[in-house]
Amino acid sequence: MQKWNCTPFVEVFRAKVFRYLKTTVTSPRTLEKADFDIIQCASWVNVVALDEAGKLILVHQYRAGSDSITIETAAGAINYKEDPLAAAKRELEEETAYTSNEWESLGIVDVNPAIMTNQCYFFLARNCKRNGTLNFDPMEEVETHLYSKDEVRILLKNQKINHSLSVLALMKFFTGF
Amino acid sequence: MQKWNCTPFVEVFRAKVFRYLKTTVTSPRTLEKADFDIIQCASWVNVVALDEAGKLILVHQYRAGSDSITIETAAGAINYKEDPLAAAKRELEEETAYTSNEWESLGIVDVNPAIMTNQCYFFLARNCKRNGTLNFDPMEEVETHLYSKDEVRILLKNQKINHSLSVLALMKFFTGF
Repeated sequence: MQKWNCTPFVEVFRAKVFRYLKTTVTSPRTLEKADFDIIQCASWVNVVALDEAGKLILVHQYRAGSDSITIETAAGAINYKEDPLAAAKRELEEETAYTSNEWESLGIVDVNPAIMTNQCYFFLARNCKRNGTLNFDPMEEVETHLYSKDEVRILLKNQKINHSLSVLALMKFFTGF
Repeated sequence: MQKWNCTPFVEVFRAKVFRYLKTTVTSPRTLEKADFDIIQCASWVNVVALDEAGKLILVHQYRAGSDSITIETAAGAINYKEDPLAAAKRELEEETAYTSNEWESLGIVDVNPAIMTNQCYFFLARNCKRNGTLNFDPMEEVETHLYSKDEVRILLKNQKINHSLSVLALMKFFTGF
């Protein structure tokens, strides 16, 4: 199979957290052309964080997409030209006040290569200490909660943690995949 | 923590595969208001399929978001009022010509509750037979490939399978989470 021919992405609409782009794609199979929708977001970081007692540091917050309070790993968008690890350290501290000197990568995925251009970078932070500074923007309200590993396994089983990228981050941690 | 107050979602723009909606949200913490972006897609299904020899049935296809040929689980959008399991059976057959009589749920996630409204439903199909009918639309080109479980574990480790929802589906299958 060969890559398809896409025209350069053109901006249709710029929203706050994404740009809606279009590209005209030619199918090598049928030679038909069609416009494909593309959603361009910043890439994201997602942090599995453990405190010094080995408890998992998770965040509760209101999410408008699901109109619910969620339980998630600390996460956020990578700023322009920011290093992914630096973004992970910043997001963990801003959301939870925890910091760590022990970071490792848990891998990278394409969020949704069918319609999105961005990646999600997963990190593990061990032996986190609550010695940093919370930094919420006016429209952010995040509560930090500590859970044992067994409690998190049950939250996953019961689908109480259900943001796809938080689930993936925690499964990577638990299973070593 | 309490749910935030959101005004009813209003359509800003309708693309082919999503609607861009806006809601005005009031923070109970600061009482400030701001518009939040919402991306509304159909919910999706994602199928881990095994043939009668226990090989995993995966699909190769061109993806415009990443401009690459990907290796993924069979997947697609649920039609209006379609049952998720019916959608899973339909997508598996349309993309691979395989069908199965042995289906089970591997759970449901919110794709991204921060900005998206939809869910992804995961299914496992065992003992699939290649006795169905491929049904590509003009802009679809999907190749079916069979992989052993060990080969798929290596593809996951090496991040050759990197669509977040395919990775999650396969990890659910391998780990029983």
